[in-house]
Amino acid sequence: MNTFGQRFRVSTFGESHGEAIGCIIDGVPAGLKIDKVFISQEVDRRKGGKNRYSTPRKESDEVEILSGVFGGISTGAPIGMIVKNNNTKSADYENIKSIFRPGHADWTYYHKYGVRDYRGGGRSSARESVLRVASGAIAKMLLKEVGIICEGGIYSIGTIVSEEVDFEYSKQSEIFSLDKNKEEAQKTLIDKARMAHNSIGGVALIKARGLDEKIPIGLGEPLYHKLDGAIASAMMGLNGVKAVEIGDGLRSAEVFGSENNDCIDSSGFLSNHSGGILGGLSNGSDIFVKVYFKPTPSIFLAQKTLDTNGNEVVCELRGRHDPCIAVRGSVVCESLLALVLADMLLLNLGSKIEHLHTIYK
Amino acid sequence: MNTFGQRFRVSTFGESHGEAIGCIIDGVPAGLKIDKVFISQEVDRRKGGKNRYSTPRKESDEVEILSGVFGGISTGAPIGMIVKNNNTKSADYENIKSIFRPGHADWTYYHKYGVRDYRGGGRSSARESVLRVASGAIAKMLLKEVGIICEGGIYSIGTIVSEEVDFEYSKQSEIFSLDKNKEEAQKTLIDKARMAHNSIGGVALIKARGLDEKIPIGLGEPLYHKLDGAIASAMMGLNGVKAVEIGDGLRSAEVFGSENNDCIDSSGFLSNHSGGILGGLSNGSDIFVKVYFKPTPSIFLAQKTLDTNGNEVVCELRGRHDPCIAVRGSVVCESLLALVLADMLLLNLGSKIEHLHTIYK
Amino acid sequence: MNTFGQRFRVSTFGESHGEAIGCIIDGVPAGLKIDKVFISQEVDRRKGGKNRYSTPRKESDEVEILSGVFGGISTGAPIGMIVKNNNTKSADYENIKSIFRPGHADWTYYHKYGVRDYRGGGRSSARESVLRVASGAIAKMLLKEVGIICEGGIYSIGTIVSEEVDFEYSKQSEIFSLDKNKEEAQKTLIDKARMAHNSIGGVALIKARGLDEKIPIGLGEPLYHKLDGAIASAMMGLNGVKAVEIGDGLRSAEVFGSENNDCIDSSGFLSNHSGGILGGLSNGSDIFVKVYFKPTPSIFLAQKTLDTNGNEVVCELRGRHDPCIAVRGSVVCESLLALVLADMLLLNLGSKIEHLHTIYK
Amino acid sequence: MNTFGQRFRVSTFGESHGEAIGCIIDGVPAGLKIDKVFISQEVDRRKGGKNRYSTPRKESDEVEILSGVFGGISTGAPIGMIVKNNNTKSADYENIKSIFRPGHADWTYYHKYGVRDYRGGGRSSARESVLRVASGAIAKMLLKEVGIICEGGIYSIGTIVSEEVDFEYSKQSEIFSLDKNKEEAQKTLIDKARMAHNSIGGVALIKARGLDEKIPIGLGEPLYHKLDGAIASAMMGLNGVKAVEIGDGLRSAEVFGSENNDCIDSSGFLSNHSGGILGGLSNGSDIFVKVYFKPTPSIFLAQKTLDTNGNEVVCELRGRHDPCIAVRGSVVCESLLALVLADMLLLNLGSKIEHLHTIYK
Repeated sequence: MNTFGQRFRVSTFGESHGEAIGCIIDGVPAGLKIDKVFISQEVDRRKGGKNRYSTPRKESDEVEILSGVFGGISTGAPIGMIVKNNNTKSADYENIKSIFRPGHADWTYYHKYGVRDYRGGGRSSARESVLRVASGAIAKMLLKEVGIICEGGIYSIGTIVSEEVDFEYSKQSEIFSLDKNKEEAQKTLIDKARMAHNSIGGVALIKARGLDEKIPIGLGEPLYHKLDGAIASAMMGLNGVKAVEIGDGLRSAEVFGSENNDCIDSSGFLSNHSGGILGGLSNGSDIFVKVYFKPTPSIFLAQKTLDTNGNEVVCELRGRHDPCIAVRGSVVCESLLALVLADMLLLNLGSKIEHLHTIYK
Repeated sequence: MNTFGQRFRVSTFGESHGEAIGCIIDGVPAGLKIDKVFISQEVDRRKGGKNRYSTPRKESDEVEILSGVFGGISTGAPIGMIVKNNNTKSADYENIKSIFRPGHADWTYYHKYGVRDYRGGGRSSARESVLRVASGAIAKMLLKEVGIICEGGIYSIGTIVSEEVDFEYSKQSEIFSLDKNKEEAQKTLIDKARMAHNSIGGVALIKARGLDEKIPIGLGEPLYHKLDGAIASAMMGLNGVKAVEIGDGLRSAEVFGSENNDCIDSSGFLSNHSGGILGGLSNGSDIFVKVYFKPTPSIFLAQKTLDTNGNEVVCELRGRHDPCIAVRGSVVCESLLALVLADMLLLNLGSKIEHLHTIYK
Repeated sequence: MNTFGQRFRVSTFGESHGEAIGCIIDGVPAGLKIDKVFISQEVDRRKGGKNRYSTPRKESDEVEILSGVFGGISTGAPIGMIVKNNNTKSADYENIKSIFRPGHADWTYYHKYGVRDYRGGGRSSARESVLRVASGAIAKMLLKEVGIICEGGIYSIGTIVSEEVDFEYSKQSEIFSLDKNKEEAQKTLIDKARMAHNSIGGVALIKARGLDEKIPIGLGEPLYHKLDGAIASAMMGLNGVKAVEIGDGLRSAEVFGSENNDCIDSSGFLSNHSGGILGGLSNGSDIFVKVYFKPTPSIFLAQKTLDTNGNEVVCELRGRHDPCIAVRGSVVCESLLALVLADMLLLNLGSKIEHLHTIYK
Repeated sequence: MNTFGQRFRVSTFGESHGEAIGCIIDGVPAGLKIDKVFISQEVDRRKGGKNRYSTPRKESDEVEILSGVFGGISTGAPIGMIVKNNNTKSADYENIKSIFRPGHADWTYYHKYGVRDYRGGGRSSARESVLRVASGAIAKMLLKEVGIICEGGIYSIGTIVSEEVDFEYSKQSEIFSLDKNKEEAQKTLIDKARMAHNSIGGVALIKARGLDEKIPIGLGEPLYHKLDGAIASAMMGLNGVKAVEIGDGLRSAEVFGSENNDCIDSSGFLSNHSGGILGGLSNGSDIFVKVYFKPTPSIFLAQKTLDTNGNEVVCELRGRHDPCIAVRGSVVCESLLALVLADMLLLNLGSKIEHLHTIYK
């Protein structure tokens, strides 16, 4: 239940305010060069405390690799990693110890388990997503070996929607905006929410490219571990995500078949309404996924709620929070797409008998 | 890869034009009364050939239970079921034997596996979804024991969107429309597509209720088998689905936190923007899921494509197809939600130590 | 729970006296030639009714392939198979409907599930092992592609132990005896047991060879899906098996390290005490497994037992049974070893990064 | 592949000479009191350096719990644990860097992965079994809630076999001997092996009791996750184990059915030849498992082997090793039985529909 993937498997542990969080990555093929600097860079992209569009909580987020790598190379043994939690202010949470914050998992965890680590959201905190990024970095290294690249950014903040999409530009944007012409308005909206002690929703757009060069077309495992199903599960399983869309998605549900089918000629597909996935398998076109984030549930306005004794109380939060979780969430989504594709890449081995003949010749 | 669920597990086999399709349902608790008539009724709801809004292919779709039931009661042994394919017109597919139909899985299956059962889409045919409905019927029986009900219908066809939502009305509608005032316009649009040899997209809305009576709040397994993640995977894994949305979904990504959080008082939640899921766990409110279907890729218009030799050809389809897959798809989505919830219900056993004390006293 | 294997996955259903038993084989690479005659031959080897050393119950055991094979070739889709039960005498079991037969699963199934299909042992019948042999036949076809061969036979019956081991001879022996000089004594002992309305235990010896030619050394997945662990699980999971031994096994526990280690020189291993497995991985030597079967629990002598109301009763069985389950069991063990190795072969793909480079070049 | 169990799941990482080893225990029900002192005691029982019958390598083996426990109580979140490696002498292994030690996993890991952490056996070291004991301690806490107790000891060393079996006595024995009258001879044999720079095999006997009080009869999941199959897999998956036997095991294969069946009267089973398992399910009697260990492969005598360049060399080992791995191995086996039973206990929830009614009333 705390494990993600089938052949490239990531199991995680850890709470927001525990001593450390960590994970085990099982299934990394032996012989992969593990670039620790790249892992740090990826984790840094997700990190808060860098500007006013994210949480002021500044973590060092140092990833320690405890196993599975020898002489800089993966050995085939599981890779164990931990990240210490060193900027925790548990006192911030004393006042919410016995109340259910609206929009949070407090209510559901309490009822499911009867016990709750209330400090910083405990297990349900987005803190755990550091591990998705760290393991996603290793997935990216694996994908790079066959030429697949994942990238992403912010498509919209509130109702400020990108008109152009530039994945290079997003890399330098403080909010990972994909449209340099919309970035300012998007920032302004986040700031407005922040100053009103409120928060705002947003949409990330994630892309994978390079699926038609070395990779055979057809990543994904029909019928119950299809590529789009696995992507949807990964994205929807991330905190705050309320909708996932592949390719044209919403628009596909509004149009005629003649407008939605991607025809083919000898130059390849003539359009990409499908977002790179047909029948649950990659078709060689770029993969496009949109991920819809709700606004951060932690807002600093009075809200009606109950306490654990069933009394009506007013919830007034303190603490440090992102005004818009979509921003840092977009980095995690990119990692998740890499994790899904790495899993599918390994699962695809053995799909044809000729793979066995090629390897075991 | 062809198995769905963890504790309530469904594994399926079969192709559109093979002798039979079938499945194994593993994990059904012993002692459940198995109502064969109800299974038939459910399968009948999905069946084509009943009106001009679905495929003219009329299957008998008789479900044979081969094991796991003794004296009308589940025994704890896996339930094996088969459904014979008896109205196949494989000859219809001779002309597409070596071409890739746009919008279909032909291209991706061919490249992944190097071999393809081209008759009626083979394994990638929506035919297999009969089994999801048949096993979903058993999941519904299990859920009924604790008072959970799943229902669904058509929310929109093309751009004709429901304004009201009436799950009772949808049961009698030929297209399962949720809004009796929009039904006619929706039907007209489907008909228009059909007569133009085209097809049209649509959206299903699925609901589960009764999660707060006998059931403890908290169905779902954090962090990687969350309820919303599992629902997204199930729905997106269905043929033709391109987006999945929980609760307010898209709108959540546009608003402020103060507009999206569901406050609580002693009467319960004051709103249900979350669609019944918080932190990946059921919160007791009704669950709402929207599922976006693309238009049927099989259209009877000339389309550019390639054949298996890489030559450019014109694809001109014959055969029998649904003008709008969302219609019958909505029935399957309802079954899928039941399957996910049945799985979560069983997985939830043992979440607290007191469950062990209650059972093993 | 009714699924075996991870990449080459077999899920089964069916009871002894139900209409049919069946299975789904998921993960067979596309492009494998499926030889139906070979499947029949394998199933025939296991079949009863051929001589007085096995049950007089004579099944036709016709395997019907319902999916996953097109034009005689596997398509990558799951292979569904059923075998009808057509020589069932359920009336034989009326008298044991409410009593617990000693040595059988009646007692445990009844207490676990509260309900029991008493006819012929229901789900717990060895009848299900037909499916292990049928799917094992497909595993053997896969293994043959890389030169691995599984074979087996009877090592001992009661205390009559083989001195020589001849896997060719066992193929023609009515009791699959590995030692032609002991065969007669072994047969006599079975006959003695049968005529005394009793039964007798025995040991099967199973071998796999050809693991050092095309196959890289190292089949098995450390640390929790090791080759020896998987073999032990497969064998011990078969009805009536009470011990499993790899290589020298028992003797290894009695000797000094200097007597047990297999030294190596440029010609290869100088001995094979390990039975072909080191550190849970195949080492290139032949794999040897001994499987210890208890005597058939169904004996026709009066035995003390209880009925489902808790009353003491005398159990007096009728029906048709093997006097020695080890005999037909040895065929199933051979199939199980093939299933384990096929799974490991597929799991091994991707163990090294160079596999990806070879396939995705 | 590095994960054990289905509902009570343990995933481990770490090498003998890495910075730390660790594990994640997923599926521990919330509300269980976690007794850290007990974990230490269990780990201490397995620890070397205490007497001359085990390795002189003395580890502090301090278990740090990083997550999943709050206020001394399990929260339902995964429990992360690490154990630092602080007495590693990697220099001892420089000389075997490029040679394959006979009887070790060097040969197979090298061929499977192409790369090898040669220090102390790397991933294949028995060091990892600390984690099995630490997680086994938590499994024991869970089992204790329903009255199940696991215990074990040494049944034989070489050919010195116990005649009596006293599980209380073994707790105070330096070699966990089950027979106080044989202990001295067993110790002498270990010493003889040690002084001859050799090693010796042995057999552990493990028992579980208390399965018929609170627990319903029937732990185990037929047909492919049976209790005996799971035990066999767990035990055979432990380093150095070459055979596993349930109940009478070997003897069962030699006798008549009338001698092997366990009859029943109103006082219960009249014998326990089955070792507490019938049809793969616990029958209420005590469970008995014998585990056969080979002698430690590390011996300090000259042995023929190859180096990684294929040259013939003489292997002459240094380092610190157990003269008999069965001794400390017996503690691990006890933990493994606890892990299997904890998993089965949780899996059994939901086997009957009445469980749902009891929990969700």
